[in-house]
Amino acid sequence: MMEPGRMRIAITGAEGVVGTVLRRRLAAHHTVVALTREPQAFPSVVANIAELLPLVEAFRGAETVIHLAAAARLDAEWPDILESNIVGTRNVFEAARLAGVSAIVFASSGHVLGLIEEAAGPELYELHDSRVFDETTPLAPDSLYAASKIFGEALGRHYAESYGLRVVCVRLGMVLPEDNPRTEGAGRGRTASLPFAERFPRIRAKWLSHRDCGELFLRCVEATTLRYAIVFGTSNNPRQIWSLDSARRLLNYVPQDAAPAAST
Amino acid sequence: MMEPGRMRIAITGAEGVVGTVLRRRLAAHHTVVALTREPQAFPSVVANIAELLPLVEAFRGAETVIHLAAAARLDAEWPDILESNIVGTRNVFEAARLAGVSAIVFASSGHVLGLIEEAAGPELYELHDSRVFDETTPLAPDSLYAASKIFGEALGRHYAESYGLRVVCVRLGMVLPEDNPRTEGAGRGRTASLPFAERFPRIRAKWLSHRDCGELFLRCVEATTLRYAIVFGTSNNPRQIWSLDSARRLLNYVPQDAAPAAST
Repeated sequence: MMEPGRMRIAITGAEGVVGTVLRRRLAAHHTVVALTREPQAFPSVVANIAELLPLVEAFRGAETVIHLAAAARLDAEWPDILESNIVGTRNVFEAARLAGVSAIVFASSGHVLGLIEEAAGPELYELHDSRVFDETTPLAPDSLYAASKIFGEALGRHYAESYGLRVVCVRLGMVLPEDNPRTEGAGRGRTASLPFAERFPRIRAKWLSHRDCGELFLRCVEATTLRYAIVFGTSNNPRQIWSLDSARRLLNYVPQDAAPAAST
Repeated sequence: MMEPGRMRIAITGAEGVVGTVLRRRLAAHHTVVALTREPQAFPSVVANIAELLPLVEAFRGAETVIHLAAAARLDAEWPDILESNIVGTRNVFEAARLAGVSAIVFASSGHVLGLIEEAAGPELYELHDSRVFDETTPLAPDSLYAASKIFGEALGRHYAESYGLRVVCVRLGMVLPEDNPRTEGAGRGRTASLPFAERFPRIRAKWLSHRDCGELFLRCVEATTLRYAIVFGTSNNPRQIWSLDSARRLLNYVPQDAAPAAST
């Protein structure tokens, strides 16, 4: 028998960086079902989000779905975006509805505001800069990828209102495989070719530690009174360009980690 | 030889209500190429937006594309939304880019804020109510249809910033075939079954006359210094729930018509 409060959570894209963090960190509190596109070395249910009906079967019995699977590269092209982030995300919401799932946590991205960063230039990331953006900031997607995440957020709103699913969209910052913002490899997309010292301020603003990532998603999963919310996901970094107010207020998220102020 | 300022404008969905208005009203100023899914009684180029390459050919030589073709019913289901509003809209933007088009006017919808209306209830439409929403209001889509329009707006932003296309998104109110807000048939979606007197205040807030519709799109087409904008499209109605400030300020749109205050 399940312990009181113990839930069954299905995670799409469980083989990715965030999925790997969440499989490990949520399993202490809930029963995790890892869904992956291909068979893995860890126990997983193979379910491609491009297909609706197998997803319904995979979700059956789960209270919550955490939807991470996506074409996640900033330069992902249309066929992949369409299959994974649009059709796939719609399949996840629809399958959750058909399977009687109560809640979906959708991995969105800070890139839905990415053009703001491009327009502001690198001084935005400096410690003395005070500009902060939040979920009421008009959308400014920097890529097809970001446009597809905006669609996912809108779709989530529709499912929340029309079908009573609870939906939390988490606009994620950077979750790093090595969990270290001073890692040379950190950073992707347009800035990946810059020297690390130039990339570091941006990483410092967006870093989400593994511990905080686990805690944030745990709060999302356990927020059973929210109907729909958009929150940002970073650690308690010394310079933040996105507001954590909603995550704190709606989810009682209290980040424990902080990126260092200096890159070395 | 073209007159100075005379442009070639391709209109998708030229057989619809808005398309019929624009074909007639823009032809006095510009050369209109009507694109339709099926052959029509009027001269048209048959081009289904579900296919990219024929669209590129259809757009070649056009300075501007007005993209109206869509699954436009509020209760449109996923296969139609996917084909027309997502894949089709992406094909329109991509074909415009490939064909060397300079600008796209995208028909979005006030339904991207539709849940605000549902939450506010019918008093929102009363003449004494002063609540007004604009392009900075957080999105609140009331349908899959509205979610797909949000995707189109985001895609437009991406094409504007990444490829230099000029993009204006017009969140349309109600353009009525008979051009008369006192028409019994006006209204669609969830409110279509209500008595006309109850539907009228909503129509009064959203009506866009044929004359104002033509003028607004003409302003969009001729706004050659805008990179990207979202504006609302209604007439100068006695009660408006959406701000026309952006349309006035960015496009010099001056609506000439106004819905009557009373339904009879």
